[in-house]
Amino acid sequence: MHALENLRSRMAELSDLAAIEMLAGWDQLVMMPAEGAAARAQQLAMLARLTHELATAEEIGAWLGEIDAAGNGAGLDELDRDIVRLAHRDWERARRVPEELAVERARAHADGQESWRLARANDDFAAFAPALARNVELARAYGDCVAEEGESRYEALLGDYDYGLRTEELRRVFGALAQALPPLVAEARVRSPRRVLEVPVGAQQAAVASTLRRLGVDEASWRVDVSAHPFTAWLGRGDSRLTTRYGDGEVESLLSSLHEYGHALYERQIDPALDRTNLGGGTSMSIHESQSKLWENHVARSPAFAEVLAAELGAGGFAVSAPELHAALVGVEPSAVRVSADPLTYPLHIVVRFELELALIGGDLAVRDLPAAWREQMRRLLGVEVSSDALGCLQDVHWGAGSFGYFPSYALGCLIAAQLWEALQLELGPREEDLRRGEVAPIQRWLGERVHRHGRRLDTIPLVEHATGHALQIEPFLRYVSPLAES
Amino acid sequence: MHALENLRSRMAELSDLAAIEMLAGWDQLVMMPAEGAAARAQQLAMLARLTHELATAEEIGAWLGEIDAAGNGAGLDELDRDIVRLAHRDWERARRVPEELAVERARAHADGQESWRLARANDDFAAFAPALARNVELARAYGDCVAEEGESRYEALLGDYDYGLRTEELRRVFGALAQALPPLVAEARVRSPRRVLEVPVGAQQAAVASTLRRLGVDEASWRVDVSAHPFTAWLGRGDSRLTTRYGDGEVESLLSSLHEYGHALYERQIDPALDRTNLGGGTSMSIHESQSKLWENHVARSPAFAEVLAAELGAGGFAVSAPELHAALVGVEPSAVRVSADPLTYPLHIVVRFELELALIGGDLAVRDLPAAWREQMRRLLGVEVSSDALGCLQDVHWGAGSFGYFPSYALGCLIAAQLWEALQLELGPREEDLRRGEVAPIQRWLGERVHRHGRRLDTIPLVEHATGHALQIEPFLRYVSPLAES
Repeated sequence: MHALENLRSRMAELSDLAAIEMLAGWDQLVMMPAEGAAARAQQLAMLARLTHELATAEEIGAWLGEIDAAGNGAGLDELDRDIVRLAHRDWERARRVPEELAVERARAHADGQESWRLARANDDFAAFAPALARNVELARAYGDCVAEEGESRYEALLGDYDYGLRTEELRRVFGALAQALPPLVAEARVRSPRRVLEVPVGAQQAAVASTLRRLGVDEASWRVDVSAHPFTAWLGRGDSRLTTRYGDGEVESLLSSLHEYGHALYERQIDPALDRTNLGGGTSMSIHESQSKLWENHVARSPAFAEVLAAELGAGGFAVSAPELHAALVGVEPSAVRVSADPLTYPLHIVVRFELELALIGGDLAVRDLPAAWREQMRRLLGVEVSSDALGCLQDVHWGAGSFGYFPSYALGCLIAAQLWEALQLELGPREEDLRRGEVAPIQRWLGERVHRHGRRLDTIPLVEHATGHALQIEPFLRYVSPLAES
Repeated sequence: MHALENLRSRMAELSDLAAIEMLAGWDQLVMMPAEGAAARAQQLAMLARLTHELATAEEIGAWLGEIDAAGNGAGLDELDRDIVRLAHRDWERARRVPEELAVERARAHADGQESWRLARANDDFAAFAPALARNVELARAYGDCVAEEGESRYEALLGDYDYGLRTEELRRVFGALAQALPPLVAEARVRSPRRVLEVPVGAQQAAVASTLRRLGVDEASWRVDVSAHPFTAWLGRGDSRLTTRYGDGEVESLLSSLHEYGHALYERQIDPALDRTNLGGGTSMSIHESQSKLWENHVARSPAFAEVLAAELGAGGFAVSAPELHAALVGVEPSAVRVSADPLTYPLHIVVRFELELALIGGDLAVRDLPAAWREQMRRLLGVEVSSDALGCLQDVHWGAGSFGYFPSYALGCLIAAQLWEALQLELGPREEDLRRGEVAPIQRWLGERVHRHGRRLDTIPLVEHATGHALQIEPFLRYVSPLAES
């Protein structure tokens, strides 16, 4: 069928273009000299414009119409039916955005990232405020365009990261966390206090490299680099790139590299039949984050895997016992910084951001008032005094890159990871023995089968149900963190 | 005028797209894990297809027609007139290439580079032959499409690198070099024999870094990396990237990094008014190569600058006198490898390649016969016995990347560099004193004014005449190399 062929060829083109955009973004954050920023912003804007043109073209509507009209006569197999279903959804969403706005957003996001980078380095919120205000303004305009009947502007933004989520559901879940976690934090900071390990950078680097190698990170199809904010890029089959950062004299690099590994593994284990289709990516940011959190919280932070990590640090010249390392990896102490937060306080950092971005997008908070509002929220939920904007509202790149509605996925990821981990152990049995030996192949396989291979064929909530047999729950996460308040 | 605005906006888009293609190519050779090759080849093919579509679109013809019809009424300034002139030329050339062929070439070039990389590593020409044969076949088809009235297929290929060059002129110039150089080589290999300096890699790295820093290579707008074959990428104003290679226990890295610096400086000093137009790049490969050869042959290989380089090597822990270093940088010995050839035998390596590619494209030489023909030519022109294909016809990436008609520019670059260097010294006075102190600003300025700023506004031969007051000559080059046969 000609229409289906055209549709699939367009999807392949868009998939290639997305990979190239990701390359340009990776390079910007990892390799590009600073003065290349202006040219790169124009290049990214051009790619966004081309992508928008190709993704919203009239002819896609015509092909879809032709396929729909043929009905059963089109003879679509199951895969084609999903390709067509998602093509409908994506095309209709994209068609609601004027090309001008798409181009403006891409440019503002590139400028915003560069502005954020400098502002953060100089702890200068005022220098970042205009770029942030522009991003807020464009996000509001974008949300208004994209919102479906009965959907709020913020839900429309959420939909770019987690299709089908509702603000009301987030309020409920995050409200429950905001209730349940602070009492646990109060106990845990006494019973499982944070212990600082001063690990030399060289030992961290050696342990990160050898631990990742154990998990299958080879030079033939991976890169591991350093960037200000750790992230992962997947530039096509056989080209996964994760970044980490060192130098805090801490063990954060071990956690963040396993975190990023989880993201990369997800994309690598998607069914190759979905390559270069519109289904060949992670289905949502929540599911993506559940994959990174599973490796960070349930593998790297387990007492069993601490034996492996301690051995690798030892080989790198830093002697530490497994229990001592484990205590440092799970120790609880409310602090200002999200990415280095302990597993118990982490979701509260997200609640802060959720409430603030809801207010920014809703028009209830002005950009100039953000630093004060941030400090206030941190005080209320975490009891933390924020000492500088660099360690406050400038700590994350997301808003600078125009990503509003993204943060909730970080907390949902924690919940889903815990729920998947319980389901996995129910089926495979406890993982302690394996993890003690660094054996992760059964985990990789279970995740590949239950979560990864589906790509975008299942949305967040249906995927959770398919993988675990249950709707989204917060109890597995509470069961995971409770021992910290008891030991 | 609306048509002119549309034309300029399309040119900006094509310029951004070219920068992104260059990024994808740079990344492929410098950063990409090997198993990413298949996906990257598809991505590059997609970019080539989009570029071809945008560069050959009907509407460009309509805009040009509208502008032409308006005549003087269009009120074009001098810059616009050049933009329109080059847009006509490029559009008409590109329109002669069917989209299918453009896409096939991009894919074959990406596959060919990867195949070449592996074949060279394993010294296995047979593994590379199919990819090369495919590239030859596509180059022939391409040349046939592009050739203008009265132009040969090979001249059409040349035109992609050096518009306006004629095969007959190349035969004349290269014939004269093939006559004049071998007797000089025979003398020079006795009087200025090659002296091998065993420079540790660490000292090379330190000297390359500090020498480049003297020339203005800072971290804010440059990158210096390592790749199998040194090259330069310019990804936009403020983002110049050169690569070099170390490890031969030799001084090649000093020469090749100054060589690549010359390429990068050319692009950096183009008039910013030409940014994101169709004029904002180097005008031809010959002129580009003249810029790299000027820094390699006339700066790095001068007795005066040897004092700077010797001091930098000394600071890097390798003690050497300036005369000793200079002798190592200019010592003559016919050898198998082009990129490490001395300045006197270098053009003969190009004559070898010119004659072989002329035969491949003309259909007078089959790919399977290339290794033997290569050995025969090397014996005849350089008196060298080639010991392996890796050091023979597999040494360069160009044919693997589908670049036929490119090699001549390397020899023309040597000639033009010598001619520019004589003109520069005639005007500024001898450079010895300055070079001894590492002072290159007057050279940078003269090149910027006479050569760089024009971008594509002047083609190869008119630019040489504009900059030196003379047509292309071989005598300045012969005057440059003659002392090697006399000292």
